[in-house]
Amino acid sequence: MFVKNAWYCAGWSQDLTLGRDALLTRRIAGESVVLYRQPDGTAVALDDRCRHRQAPLSLGRKEGNGLRCMYHGWLFGPDGRCTAIPGQAEVRQAAAVRAYPLVERNDWLWVWMGDPARADPALICDSVGPSHPEWDLRTAHIGVNTNYRLEIANLTDLTHVAWVHADTFGGTTAYSAIRAKQTITARGLDTEFWARGVPAPTVAQHLFPAEARFDLHFDVSVTVPCNFILKFKVYTAGTATEGPSNGQLLVDTFSSQSVTPRDAESVDYYYSWGARRGTTAPGLVDLLIEANHAAFLEDKRILEGQFQRMKERPDFATLDYAHDSGPGKMLFVLDKLLREEAVATSVA
Amino acid sequence: MFVKNAWYCAGWSQDLTLGRDALLTRRIAGESVVLYRQPDGTAVALDDRCRHRQAPLSLGRKEGNGLRCMYHGWLFGPDGRCTAIPGQAEVRQAAAVRAYPLVERNDWLWVWMGDPARADPALICDSVGPSHPEWDLRTAHIGVNTNYRLEIANLTDLTHVAWVHADTFGGTTAYSAIRAKQTITARGLDTEFWARGVPAPTVAQHLFPAEARFDLHFDVSVTVPCNFILKFKVYTAGTATEGPSNGQLLVDTFSSQSVTPRDAESVDYYYSWGARRGTTAPGLVDLLIEANHAAFLEDKRILEGQFQRMKERPDFATLDYAHDSGPGKMLFVLDKLLREEAVATSVA
Amino acid sequence: MFVKNAWYCAGWSQDLTLGRDALLTRRIAGESVVLYRQPDGTAVALDDRCRHRQAPLSLGRKEGNGLRCMYHGWLFGPDGRCTAIPGQAEVRQAAAVRAYPLVERNDWLWVWMGDPARADPALICDSVGPSHPEWDLRTAHIGVNTNYRLEIANLTDLTHVAWVHADTFGGTTAYSAIRAKQTITARGLDTEFWARGVPAPTVAQHLFPAEARFDLHFDVSVTVPCNFILKFKVYTAGTATEGPSNGQLLVDTFSSQSVTPRDAESVDYYYSWGARRGTTAPGLVDLLIEANHAAFLEDKRILEGQFQRMKERPDFATLDYAHDSGPGKMLFVLDKLLREEAVATSVA
Repeated sequence: MFVKNAWYCAGWSQDLTLGRDALLTRRIAGESVVLYRQPDGTAVALDDRCRHRQAPLSLGRKEGNGLRCMYHGWLFGPDGRCTAIPGQAEVRQAAAVRAYPLVERNDWLWVWMGDPARADPALICDSVGPSHPEWDLRTAHIGVNTNYRLEIANLTDLTHVAWVHADTFGGTTAYSAIRAKQTITARGLDTEFWARGVPAPTVAQHLFPAEARFDLHFDVSVTVPCNFILKFKVYTAGTATEGPSNGQLLVDTFSSQSVTPRDAESVDYYYSWGARRGTTAPGLVDLLIEANHAAFLEDKRILEGQFQRMKERPDFATLDYAHDSGPGKMLFVLDKLLREEAVATSVA
Repeated sequence: MFVKNAWYCAGWSQDLTLGRDALLTRRIAGESVVLYRQPDGTAVALDDRCRHRQAPLSLGRKEGNGLRCMYHGWLFGPDGRCTAIPGQAEVRQAAAVRAYPLVERNDWLWVWMGDPARADPALICDSVGPSHPEWDLRTAHIGVNTNYRLEIANLTDLTHVAWVHADTFGGTTAYSAIRAKQTITARGLDTEFWARGVPAPTVAQHLFPAEARFDLHFDVSVTVPCNFILKFKVYTAGTATEGPSNGQLLVDTFSSQSVTPRDAESVDYYYSWGARRGTTAPGLVDLLIEANHAAFLEDKRILEGQFQRMKERPDFATLDYAHDSGPGKMLFVLDKLLREEAVATSVA
Repeated sequence: MFVKNAWYCAGWSQDLTLGRDALLTRRIAGESVVLYRQPDGTAVALDDRCRHRQAPLSLGRKEGNGLRCMYHGWLFGPDGRCTAIPGQAEVRQAAAVRAYPLVERNDWLWVWMGDPARADPALICDSVGPSHPEWDLRTAHIGVNTNYRLEIANLTDLTHVAWVHADTFGGTTAYSAIRAKQTITARGLDTEFWARGVPAPTVAQHLFPAEARFDLHFDVSVTVPCNFILKFKVYTAGTATEGPSNGQLLVDTFSSQSVTPRDAESVDYYYSWGARRGTTAPGLVDLLIEANHAAFLEDKRILEGQFQRMKERPDFATLDYAHDSGPGKMLFVLDKLLREEAVATSVA
């Protein structure tokens, strides 16, 4: 169902404060995880169930670097080891909860759900966080009641912008003719393409003359489970060449998006969007994130509807077409990793 | 579970407008159906899932006579054939969605859920719609969370009026002594009976002297899945003879009711009630439909409670009595049709 | 799942009035029960489903000593025997619904869910009701979405007061060091302990100087399914001896609590708390019940969270510790009774 040996986004850094009662509980890849910060700010992720009788630690109390279960008072350190059991002198080794490797990077909290020995921070996707000085970014979050494979299919075929986002980022059917360059990577899929000579997107058409045309460049990297890093640049039409371009760059944007499956039926979607300082204008970044939120509600409507229909007819024989190659490649990578984990688990 | 070779009511004609965004999605006999009108007003019913990846077509867009899926832009004609797939030259025959035979009659939309070759409009139940010039009718709709077999049992034994509808159409226990003439038909059950010398129903007792008595004549035709056509006449007591009566007719009413199972646990109930022009009085038809709605809420409470109890004890041994003959006959017809379809399907 | 040969609390006497429409429906140990009073006040408990087709009798109508199903009018006496079937002369013996033995005692309604021949009122737990002249008691009710075994574990280990109730009845971790005397009884567990030299509980700390200390005596009797009778006394610290004490008694309280499982996932929790007249003060009993309600919301949060986590990981290997002995003993008694009933049922 889920690749366990992967970094999953558990939220934005700013979501986890140093507040006395700041205990976040998250459902990640089918597991309940509690997050908190130690007094020095170090974030911790533990199994959100006491080793005793599964009471949620997220209903507990922070004490020093540790977390106390508030059912019977068992105290756990940030490594998950139990350090005190009130009413009992002995504290056995077995009285530990699982601690998940956690890395905070680019303003995101990343939790490794698999074998801790394999938790290599180099596998965390490269991104830009909202605190990066060269970028002006906004962040947001949305919940979607769908299976994360449908999110993967959505994000690896951007021709859907023409239709799903006709009222926001679309405004042209040119997207449907995209011929993207797609390259399978070790843990994902890279996509690059131009949309040339297109009108402004629907949300920005009021800002330009009707005849204005643009060249858009998309550089997308998707990695498991479903992290989507987008470098999106807008040029005056006809001025931009292939490759690193010396065209008339109008705006240089960056979006970090991470879809974390909670379970088989829902996901948390964390995302940012914004522009490189110096290529923006007053109100532009606000427009981007506002439009992005509107667009993700459009996706949510489609993906929840599609998931509902899939549950009605799980044996429906799907029909492929040209633009399924992106989703096909990314799901191929995902399924390969799932198979490898299944083999490793059965051997171990 | 459901007879497929049958016309199912998908709603009132007036529910489906020519509006730009007028796309109705209905759950009928376990299937999701999208309905829309072509520019000339012809209503269309298609499987509410794109042939590609099951995105709901009801989230799509009307274009000419067709319907475009707004996930990747596949365009379907009113016959379900795909006419365009953006980004791909070839449109294969296989890229079609199921189109359901649809007939609009007496202000109702009827959809055939089975073999299109057998979709005979002559099987549509005879009724009177609210636009009929000789009748003054009102329409309504209610949803009930129950299995449709319980609705069948409710509608083929009107003795329940004495009890369930004590506060509306009852007001006398005379109904419990009804000896109805019930005749099995090819696809249903006809019921005819008199209730003689009864007081006014509870909802109308304030309109008459306490001693006023009436003869009521019921002529009911129920057909699969659960269409209930009621001709109900009220006479001054003692003046009406059997058969076509020359008694003193006070009001001549007509009610068309159609119960469409959405799935095994819920139904849509579309109904009308009203009186023949010339036999009515100001406010009378409004009283009828208002009382009918109140009565159907009474039924809903009982049928939902009964269904809840049945789910608690699916192996409960029921106990029959005299008035179960109507329900028994109608369910016999239903089960016979279900068996015939099962045989036909297994042979095919 | 549930011990059937046991008295289950169906609510407070005051919940069941003589009102015309006063029909209570309760889910008790997986069964639906309807309760009403006869005109002389005698309470009756019947299976809440008509013998005919399972319509809920709680949607029915009281008539004399009986209850009429308002679907088709079948009338049942307080013994469950059917006395009239409208439209049919014959009323067969089979047309009866199950009547449950019911005893009203100490302002509680008790229903026996098993073999009526074994319904011995002597098995009803000893308690004090709110109408007892020597006591000033308040009553309340709360619903909890948890399995009742978790309630049993909660109530037979009061060390949890230190943690779960830190903001109400706690205020000291002394509870976690309790060494209670626990005695298995025929159908439950008796617990007795002192908490000596403790500060006032959090909810009452504003009433005393910070240095005030108290000796608290707990005398608890728990019986199946989950009836909790608490005699709780507060003394000035250092004045009370073991056994019947001649110490300086400050307040003498009594709490009757009964947890009735509705099904495997939820319970009804009926409880009272108050003080013996002469040991109370204006506002004290109101404080007790108010604090109790706040404390039970604390329990509810933990027990619902714990139950959620248990459903996520039904195969979780729990880890025991010193204070599990109370829950262990009581669940041992419960499981012993469950096994005995299973054997008796398979033999019969």
